Amino acid sequence: MTDRTYRVTEIVGTSGESLDQAIRNGIMRASQTLRHLDWFEVTEIRGHIDAGEIAHYQVGMKVGFRLEDS
Amino acid sequence: MTDRTYRVTEIVGTSGESLDQAIRNGIMRASQTLRHLDWFEVTEIRGHIDAGEIAHYQVGMKVGFRLEDS
Amino acid sequence: MTDRTYRVTEIVGTSGESLDQAIRNGIMRASQTLRHLDWFEVTEIRGHIDAGEIAHYQVGMKVGFRLEDS
Amino acid sequence: MTDRTYRVTEIVGTSGESLDQAIRNGIMRASQTLRHLDWFEVTEIRGHIDAGEIAHYQVGMKVGFRLEDS
Amino acid sequence: MTDRTYRVTEIVGTSGESLDQAIRNGIMRASQTLRHLDWFEVTEIRGHIDAGEIAHYQVGMKVGFRLEDS
Amino acid sequence: MTDRTYRVTEIVGTSGESLDQAIRNGIMRASQTLRHLDWFEVTEIRGHIDAGEIAHYQVGMKVGFRLEDS
Amino acid sequence: MTDRTYRVTEIVGTSGESLDQAIRNGIMRASQTLRHLDWFEVTEIRGHIDAGEIAHYQVGMKVGFRLEDS
Amino acid sequence: MTDRTYRVTEIVGTSGESLDQAIRNGIMRASQTLRHLDWFEVTEIRGHIDAGEIAHYQVGMKVGFRLEDS
Amino acid sequence: MTDRTYRVTEIVGTSGESLDQAIRNGIMRASQTLRHLDWFEVTEIRGHIDAGEIAHYQVGMKVGFRLEDS
Amino acid sequence: MTDRTYRVTEIVGTSGESLDQAIRNGIMRASQTLRHLDWFEVTEIRGHIDAGEIAHYQVGMKVGFRLEDS
Amino acid sequence: MTDRTYRVTEIVGTSGESLDQAIRNGIMRASQTLRHLDWFEVTEIRGHIDAGEIAHYQVGMKVGFRLEDS
Amino acid sequence: MTDRTYRVTEIVGTSGESLDQAIRNGIMRASQTLRHLDWFEVTEIRGHIDAGEIAHYQVGMKVGFRLEDS
Repeated sequence: MTDRTYRVTEIVGTSGESLDQAIRNGIMRASQTLRHLDWFEVTEIRGHIDAGEIAHYQVGMKVGFRLEDS
Repeated sequence: MTDRTYRVTEIVGTSGESLDQAIRNGIMRASQTLRHLDWFEVTEIRGHIDAGEIAHYQVGMKVGFRLEDS
Repeated sequence: MTDRTYRVTEIVGTSGESLDQAIRNGIMRASQTLRHLDWFEVTEIRGHIDAGEIAHYQVGMKVGFRLEDS
Repeated sequence: MTDRTYRVTEIVGTSGESLDQAIRNGIMRASQTLRHLDWFEVTEIRGHIDAGEIAHYQVGMKVGFRLEDS
Repeated sequence: MTDRTYRVTEIVGTSGESLDQAIRNGIMRASQTLRHLDWFEVTEIRGHIDAGEIAHYQVGMKVGFRLEDS
Repeated sequence: MTDRTYRVTEIVGTSGESLDQAIRNGIMRASQTLRHLDWFEVTEIRGHIDAGEIAHYQVGMKVGFRLEDS
Repeated sequence: MTDRTYRVTEIVGTSGESLDQAIRNGIMRASQTLRHLDWFEVTEIRGHIDAGEIAHYQVGMKVGFRLEDS
Repeated sequence: MTDRTYRVTEIVGTSGESLDQAIRNGIMRASQTLRHLDWFEVTEIRGHIDAGEIAHYQVGMKVGFRLEDS
Repeated sequence: MTDRTYRVTEIVGTSGESLDQAIRNGIMRASQTLRHLDWFEVTEIRGHIDAGEIAHYQVGMKVGFRLEDS
Repeated sequence: MTDRTYRVTEIVGTSGESLDQAIRNGIMRASQTLRHLDWFEVTEIRGHIDAGEIAHYQVGMKVGFRLEDS
Repeated sequence: MTDRTYRVTEIVGTSGESLDQAIRNGIMRASQTLRHLDWFEVTEIRGHIDAGEIAHYQVGMKVGFRLEDS
Repeated sequence: MTDRTYRVTEIVGTSGESLDQAIRNGIMRASQTLRHLDWFEVTEIRGHIDAGEIAHYQVGMKVGFRLEDS
């Protein structure tokens, strides 16, 4: 087996609903343009407040994916 | 437009139910005494355990709000 | 009252379902072998991705428990 | 001389012009409501971008001030 | 039981005598204006030196207190 | 409104003149190839020294931009 | 001489009296069940406040001890 | 001389053999698709263990490269 | 498949020879008493110097292992 | 070419005028006693406030310089 | 008044007696060879354990001192 | 036995060959001008890349040495 190399990119997923949904939304969108997504790691949990309520959650994530042999 | 200044205060929201609810509880309580709440950022996720079960979640947050022109 | 000492151990709870469930799964398993569990603190939120979807959440936690007087 | 106590509060100063001006704007606004401001410490330098240009700088600062003897 | 919310404020206690006394001085002063103080956490230990001797210790602390139901 | 996803990329802007100019140079160059730039966050301030003078400032920044719906 | 391996465990020592005593209490209790204790490193200094006074200090420590050859 | 801008990307190099080889493998693979690689900085050293032995080393790295004038 | 829980323990491996060997020595010793070792993460690289030469390398590591279903 | 070794020393430059000037002042003073200064890295941005205005900026920096072959 | 520059050096003070004494011992020794000592900041609190008791405290400190005009 | 004080200085060792050699080169050079070197701690691992290959490794280290009684 060859020694694989991975790339790590950083995204921010958002949701008006919940933390979990913000993570899933970000992963879902990233998987549309990046192949071989392998893992994620949450780096930041923030959100915007509007009129005393959470307008949307923003979850920063590092997302790792395997590079194909070139 | 004038250059706004924001203040950031730190709170801990709690809930016996879930992480999301602890965040919402903290924001809701803060919005009763602070006006112009604009964003939050989670700084710590902890909780107490009682008899092997999570008694309550404690989510530390920084909460930012706009200062009115004085 | 004597001055208590606590030990802190580190675990990773996992769940295919949600962050909250990964935390609960880890605490539940830890409480089977450790007595007097008192608090937890989340140190890391990661997960594995399979075919563009979250296969499971992995939540790293420090878990504190009271040592009995020896 | 008695042993003084200080409070530290966190603000975000903004400016469309420069980092230095964002810091000065924040300090100036804080000094309108807080007495005995003594020091500041920059904790975060961010900004918003609009149409490829910096719309405004946002500088997070801790600001310390002496509490009067009560 | 309702879900409580806490606020966290940052202070710097000082003492010419010892670390412990600087912590106690800060807590004592904070308790004169804040009710329901619940915990503290040391964030920074510094001090000033004068003529080769420690003139005073400065201990930065986060101090948490329970917000009353509003 | 759909839940947006953002990507965060890291750049280093440089300038022989000032910190502010190094930030502006980096943002300007990034905006030539990335659309919808939304915010930046300074992560590192360094520089090279030549003959006892600052030859150029190097400012590391995270730059966030909105991903278009795919 | 063989290459030794050490284990590091985390404890929280407490005392109603002082920081130093909280450290000593934690080490003393740990030494009742762990052999070959070699070093400690303070990771956290906290405490509980009751009626405006420090009820007890809590000092988090990593404690290292040599594993015996197996 | 114009003021250059650099991009920083994050990769994970792996090797079954050694730390140094994991770094070299990652750099080698990155240089196949990125031009003007200029520096790297190790951010994380991890690895997988299989049957009590290190199956492979995983070294996280930031890799910087100069952007061409556009 | 059930949701697994992992424990993370911290060790320090040492070697008079090299970083890689210090890591391997620590893992090897840990695998004599812990089953299902799954991953490691380096947290600290230190060493002792004697007469101007490196007497031994000390590599701090977190080591994760799967808990068996109880 | 031999393998060079560098030393890193920490300084605090100050200025009543601006951040940039505080950095330049520190580098200028350091270059009077240290030869072969090669790079700097800002580690802390603070300042003193007097009568609601910034009395002086204090910029902490690490400064690296090449050691001559001995 | 000219803009002063400070140097920051790192020391480790030790004591068999207490944290406070380890800090004082380090400052006292540093003041024998460095003039114009102005402040210190604790960066690390460690210690060695011998036969289940604390053999000595080791307190890492940054110590700042004013450089004379050259 | 008197209470010793240590100084900690920061160096960067380099090597075109390997991480271990960069560490050894730095220690070797430091030991030519500093007596009583006692320990080192790696703080940063970086390197320069030239034509897709690692030109040299740069390992930042803190190096501690005992101060002689003055």
